Amino acid sequence: MSGPAFTLYGDRRSGNCQKIVFAADWLGLDYRFVDVDVMAGESRTPEFLAVNPVGQVPVVVFDDSRSLAQSNAVLLFLAENTALLPQDPFLRAKVNEWLFWEQYSHEPYVAVCRFQMVYQGKGPGDREAWRVERAEAALDHMDAQLAGKSFLVGESLSVADIALLAYTRLAGEGGFDLSKRPNLTAWIARCETALELPSAAA
Amino acid sequence: MSGPAFTLYGDRRSGNCQKIVFAADWLGLDYRFVDVDVMAGESRTPEFLAVNPVGQVPVVVFDDSRSLAQSNAVLLFLAENTALLPQDPFLRAKVNEWLFWEQYSHEPYVAVCRFQMVYQGKGPGDREAWRVERAEAALDHMDAQLAGKSFLVGESLSVADIALLAYTRLAGEGGFDLSKRPNLTAWIARCETALELPSAAA
Repeated sequence: MSGPAFTLYGDRRSGNCQKIVFAADWLGLDYRFVDVDVMAGESRTPEFLAVNPVGQVPVVVFDDSRSLAQSNAVLLFLAENTALLPQDPFLRAKVNEWLFWEQYSHEPYVAVCRFQMVYQGKGPGDREAWRVERAEAALDHMDAQLAGKSFLVGESLSVADIALLAYTRLAGEGGFDLSKRPNLTAWIARCETALELPSAAA
Repeated sequence: MSGPAFTLYGDRRSGNCQKIVFAADWLGLDYRFVDVDVMAGESRTPEFLAVNPVGQVPVVVFDDSRSLAQSNAVLLFLAENTALLPQDPFLRAKVNEWLFWEQYSHEPYVAVCRFQMVYQGKGPGDREAWRVERAEAALDHMDAQLAGKSFLVGESLSVADIALLAYTRLAGEGGFDLSKRPNLTAWIARCETALELPSAAA
């Protein structure tokens, strides 16, 4: 009898960590979750830096002790040869396009605003105006791209949806109002149903 | 007789665009380069936004009119089934790890400092201290990770090297001194040789 396939070091409040939980649970993978309290400095200890020299969660460590960081790289690795990643090369490329866009043009704005409010206890008025503007633009972009579509790429749930869902469904915690973005809110509900998650809007 | 395989809309000074040129030239791909002057607003015209609604270069458009944005997504697509992308699943994951790290923890610091100096005409002292600090940390991280290694992943040049090379070799234009990072400068020279590029340090 073998142990879990991998250990996920993460912070349960972090959307980047939740992404991996969503995908791993949907895929029925056997893994162990080890809580790392980022705010208490637990991602900067010598022991943790030996696992991920960048000092970031999430990071996964496999049975053979090899480790992999970067939430979206982990998603792609876990999703290979599953329904969460298309086989068609161009659809795969579009999944990657969303994943890179998420890390460059969504997470630094939407997630960081939430970080400031949830982790640092700031109010919505304390958020930098330029960051709020870019976050709103990212949410608008998603709403526009989802017009007439059920999922971001192709006709079914993929890791693109999971990566974008994590922080988008929690945008309210970052001071954002999604109610005027009907394509986006319908997509969030659709993804939450597919992943058997409770509604974050409730 | 068919036309070029794709059209690359880009700005030749942009490292994100240069990445694709480096890979496409190395692979011997047939493509057309269309100059888009970002500073003149050419990436915000209705015509360009119809190609890439995000309003960013690079974007590639294939013969069948399908388009793909996000430099690292394009790199991965072009490199599939070539020597620039390993076949081993875990090595591919490590390539992805570097690509996501580049967009999140390197480009926003190293490339943006260069943007401020090259495009906006600022001096090194005009760069934000927090951004400089993170850029220096990113360059230090690369130098440490390259100790004893010829390339970032596996034993040969991959799109991970190409993606990181683009802005790293131009870091001097962003006010950074690479001379105290011997692993990094050796890797830059090695990649430039492999890609038949002139030395950016010259």
